[in-house]
This record gives sequence, structure tokens and C-alpha cells, in this order.
Amino acid sequence: MKLSDLGEFGLIGRIEGRFPQPVSPELGIGDDGAILSPSPGKQLVVSTDLLAEGVHFDRSFCPPRLLGRKALAVNLSDLAAMGAIPRWFFLSLAIPQGFPLEDIEQMLDGMSAIAGEHGCLLAGGDTCSSSSGLVLSITVMGEQFPGLIIRRAGAKTGDDVWVSGSLGDSSMGLLALKSGESVDPWLINRHLDPAPRVGLGLALAEAGLATAMIDISDGLLADLGHICRQSGCGANVFLKDVPVSSPFLAKTASEPFPWHLVVSGGEDYELCFTASPASRGAIAELAKKSGIQAGIVGIVTNSGQVQAQLPDGTDLKPSSSGYKHF
Amino acid sequence: MKLSDLGEFGLIGRIEGRFPQPVSPELGIGDDGAILSPSPGKQLVVSTDLLAEGVHFDRSFCPPRLLGRKALAVNLSDLAAMGAIPRWFFLSLAIPQGFPLEDIEQMLDGMSAIAGEHGCLLAGGDTCSSSSGLVLSITVMGEQFPGLIIRRAGAKTGDDVWVSGSLGDSSMGLLALKSGESVDPWLINRHLDPAPRVGLGLALAEAGLATAMIDISDGLLADLGHICRQSGCGANVFLKDVPVSSPFLAKTASEPFPWHLVVSGGEDYELCFTASPASRGAIAELAKKSGIQAGIVGIVTNSGQVQAQLPDGTDLKPSSSGYKHF
Repeated sequence: MKLSDLGEFGLIGRIEGRFPQPVSPELGIGDDGAILSPSPGKQLVVSTDLLAEGVHFDRSFCPPRLLGRKALAVNLSDLAAMGAIPRWFFLSLAIPQGFPLEDIEQMLDGMSAIAGEHGCLLAGGDTCSSSSGLVLSITVMGEQFPGLIIRRAGAKTGDDVWVSGSLGDSSMGLLALKSGESVDPWLINRHLDPAPRVGLGLALAEAGLATAMIDISDGLLADLGHICRQSGCGANVFLKDVPVSSPFLAKTASEPFPWHLVVSGGEDYELCFTASPASRGAIAELAKKSGIQAGIVGIVTNSGQVQAQLPDGTDLKPSSSGYKHF
Repeated sequence: MKLSDLGEFGLIGRIEGRFPQPVSPELGIGDDGAILSPSPGKQLVVSTDLLAEGVHFDRSFCPPRLLGRKALAVNLSDLAAMGAIPRWFFLSLAIPQGFPLEDIEQMLDGMSAIAGEHGCLLAGGDTCSSSSGLVLSITVMGEQFPGLIIRRAGAKTGDDVWVSGSLGDSSMGLLALKSGESVDPWLINRHLDPAPRVGLGLALAEAGLATAMIDISDGLLADLGHICRQSGCGANVFLKDVPVSSPFLAKTASEPFPWHLVVSGGEDYELCFTASPASRGAIAELAKKSGIQAGIVGIVTNSGQVQAQLPDGTDLKPSSSGYKHF
């Protein structure tokens, strides 16, 4: 069957059938708006991300199922960065004429899977045609007690700077996808199917351990810069301590080390957070429980700037500070 | 200045400067997510609409300021249809390379104006480049006490079917814009700058008078059909009673009357609601207070179908039941 035979309301039916819906007294798909109730005492945490074909993804190397997962994952990553519990999301789809229905269904299946993994319910959306590429716009809503939400503001001079997982895998995976060069499939997967660190973010929030937090989407230096601006501080990053993966290391063994991929490559979707040195033990234990590696990569300073030191002690001159949209 | 000189964060600054932000303990633009608190005892009502260039609007005849107004208006219209009070919205923008910054600013000014008219705060969003046309994706959030929210389900056999304002103006305005034919500018304005019936929707909700409600975006017959499906009923519409405006009438004086524009033209953004005949006086008074015309156009039946009778008593054969996206 083609999308044109199915029609808008047929498509909405296929979407609805794939996602469990909020239950009464809440209301999901099928009215002018969804009706939702945050848990008593909790504030809403809301984030939105738009993914456009040709800008955020290339369908020639991004399988529909993983595109569906990633579109929601990058939104969940924002909730993770505030320590919020995912609750609902809204999906708007602009679909080009003649787009294969099968690809849409695989995309929805991927999205449904990751939504289920994080207990996030599809509560509504919009579907329409696109005169050009595929567009996915998602708004995600989570909740948390006011005192537990972790913001970008809050880092204090002397705090440790922590990073979860490993950095640079995603941008190395993307480079390989673009060039056709062969790399460890794990690196490709880190780009196509990033895992939002919802559990770790939530654990840090509940334990009250992080003073500030952000998810790394534009690269460590750019995103740590956001924390510093909002917190009125600076930071010093020791590149020798920044976690990189074995597949990343293996690929770079015979060339000058690509620090720019590690600190400015972007799309890592790891968490960068600051915390008092007194919390080191507690954070290490909590990361272990979450099954996510976390390490100290720098220190919060009062310099007002983010600086990065190479292993030889000289300063890194950043070639780029994140993806430029315009 | 060009958008490419301003950059993504410069643009975000220009957006932020145009919209009043939620105040502490809430949080708007500038973190991974917004932090929001619905009023005690109220549920959230959330709706989302995506507008894509070449599908929903044509920049050759839609001035940027009005495009900005309309993008938010169609979302506010969904809140109106549920009797919710607008609170916050999220704006995602995908902007083509080389798009005039001045047009973006005018669009934001228009959006800021209508947001202010309805007390709706911009709480966050996303900006990125687009490899093709302009895309605006908005998620709007309102709130209302659970018992007052008006849904599509709830219409009862014997209820009156009401419509606010006048129908067909928008589609006649759009036809004129496309053909270049001269019409009363008021009709053009009804297409380019629809007024969401937030006040009327809210008044109906607070008075508990409407049994079901929807906003007319796809045309009266299609949208009344949604009420009937959700309510498990049918409806009979008497076309002689459907309100049309003087400029619409004047334009159609010398030709066969274009009923399809009135009942299936779409983009009216008026309210269609059902109510007990016992509420007629109260609704008339409430509409008068709201300054919005409202009239009875039909009756809810148990037929399971929406039928429309021409003034001569014969049934209208609908040529179309709303815009087909695929």
C-alpha cells in the first residue's frame, strides 16, 4: 500500500496503533489537544528538537528504524540533562510525496521501541505532506520535583567537570558513513543510535549530586561553554582525561590524534556535569550502578572561559565550536 | 545583517529579545528544557501544528508578519476548541540558507504580537537550517480544570450544532490570492490572519454549556464528522442557516453559490460546538459578550453520518471532505 492510498487519517491510525496512549483521565491522539496531568508536586520539563532531512540526517545511510529511534533519543537526552523523568511526547511529521510507507512504518517502530524503553507515551502530533524533504519535529515532556531539576546554571569554582561514556565516537562514525571508509560498526552505531543517558541523569538528580548539567550535542567545549555562561564561571579541560573508546583509539593509532572530533565533533549525547569534589565517591558509585562510565575531565574555574589542555600541557586551539547552522 | 553573520545563537538572542519569558521558579529559553508549572488543580492541554512552505503557505503572497501570527493562531485555535487558557508555546524553525533576516524578524514580531494578545509565553524551541523551504513547528500548552475541558466526544442526539463567525471567507480569500482576482481585502485577511476564538471557547468551557467542540480547520462537514465519530452520533446541517459574511455573499451574487467553500473550504478557524437546546439563550448571551457571532446550523442525530441539506431541501453531495495531504 502507498501513503497516498492510506491518506492522512489512515496514517494517523497506523501511528496510533503502534504507541500505547495516555489513559483516562488523560487523553492522547484524537482530539484538538492532548489532556495531561503532571504528578502532584512535580514541575514539567519540556524540550523540542526538529530534525530535517539533508541537515540532520541523510536517508542514504540512516535506516528508517534508527532514524525513528534517534529523533526521540536526542529529545530524551535533553530531559536526561535536567534529571527529568520522561512522560509524553508529540510528533510532527512532514512527509514528501511518494515517500515509502514501509519506511515510515519502520521509523515509527524504531521510535515506539525507544519510547517504550523510557516509558514515554506518544500523546499527539501532526502529519502533513512536505514539498521537499522529510521533517520530524518532536516535543518531549518530562517531570521532576522542583528541587531536584538540574540546570545549566549552578556550577561553582572548584567543582569537578564530569563526562559520561566516551566522546568522539559519533563524529568518527559519521565521517566513515560519509566517506565510505571502513570502521568498527560500533562507531557507526554510536552515530546512528545514540543512547540517551536518562537513567544516569535521573540518578544524579535524585541524589542531588550535580551542580549543573547539559547533554553534549554540539561538542564538549561548546556545551561546557553553555554551562559556564549560565553559571558565570569558566572551566579547564584536561584532554588526557577525556574518555575515548577503544574502537576510536584503534582507528586513530597511526595518525595525529583527532582531538577536534573528541571535543567539538558533536552528537555525542553524553552528559557533561559539574559536582563538588566531595561527591566523587558517591558519583563513581552511582555511575557504576547505572552501568554508565563517568569520569572527571576538568575543573570549574573563575576565568570566564573554557580552556582545553593537550596532554603535553599546551592549550588546544579549537578549530570549530560546534555545527554552524547558518 | 545576514542570518549567516548572526549565526544560530545570535538568532536565538533575537528571538529571546522579542518574547517575554516565563519567570522564576519557571524557566524559558536557555537550558536543555523549559521548566513549567501548571496552576494547581488544572490539567494541561497540549497541541502541535507544523507549517511547511509550499504546503501550508506560499511566501509569495503571505507577508512574514502575518505568517508569524497565523502559525501561532492555528495552534491557539486548538486550545480554544477545548476551552483551555493559553500558557506557553515552543517554536521550532527550519530556515533555508540565504533567507532574509528581516523576514524572520517580521515573522517573530507578528508571532510575538498574537502571543501577547493571548498571554501565551514562548518557553523554548529549536532553530536550524533547512535544505529546502521554511518550516515552523509549534507546540502550544494551555490549562484548564479537568471538569471544564471540552472534548470532541460528548455530543448527544437532539443537541444543537453551533458555529461561530462565518464560514468560507478564508477559502475564498485563498482562491483570490492564488488567481490574482480582486476581492474584498477582508476576505484575504480572513485567510492570512485568522483570529483564534480563544475567548469564546473559554467562556463556553467556564459556563459548562458545550457538550462537544472542535475548531474548523478542514471544513465544517469534515470537522463536525470528527465530533460525530468521537461522540458516536450523526448530524444534520441546514445550509440555509450556515453563517456567511457580507463580503462572501457580495462576491457570489452572480454565480452558483459555492457551498463547497462554505462547508469544505477549510482554514476557517471558527468553533463548531454542540449544546442542549435548553442552553440557547445562555449561549446567545455569552457569544454577545464575547463579541463573536454564533448561530445554530444543525442538529445532532443518531444516524452516524453528517448530512447537509441545501436550502431547497435536497441533500448536498460533498465534492471534498477537507484537504488531502498525501
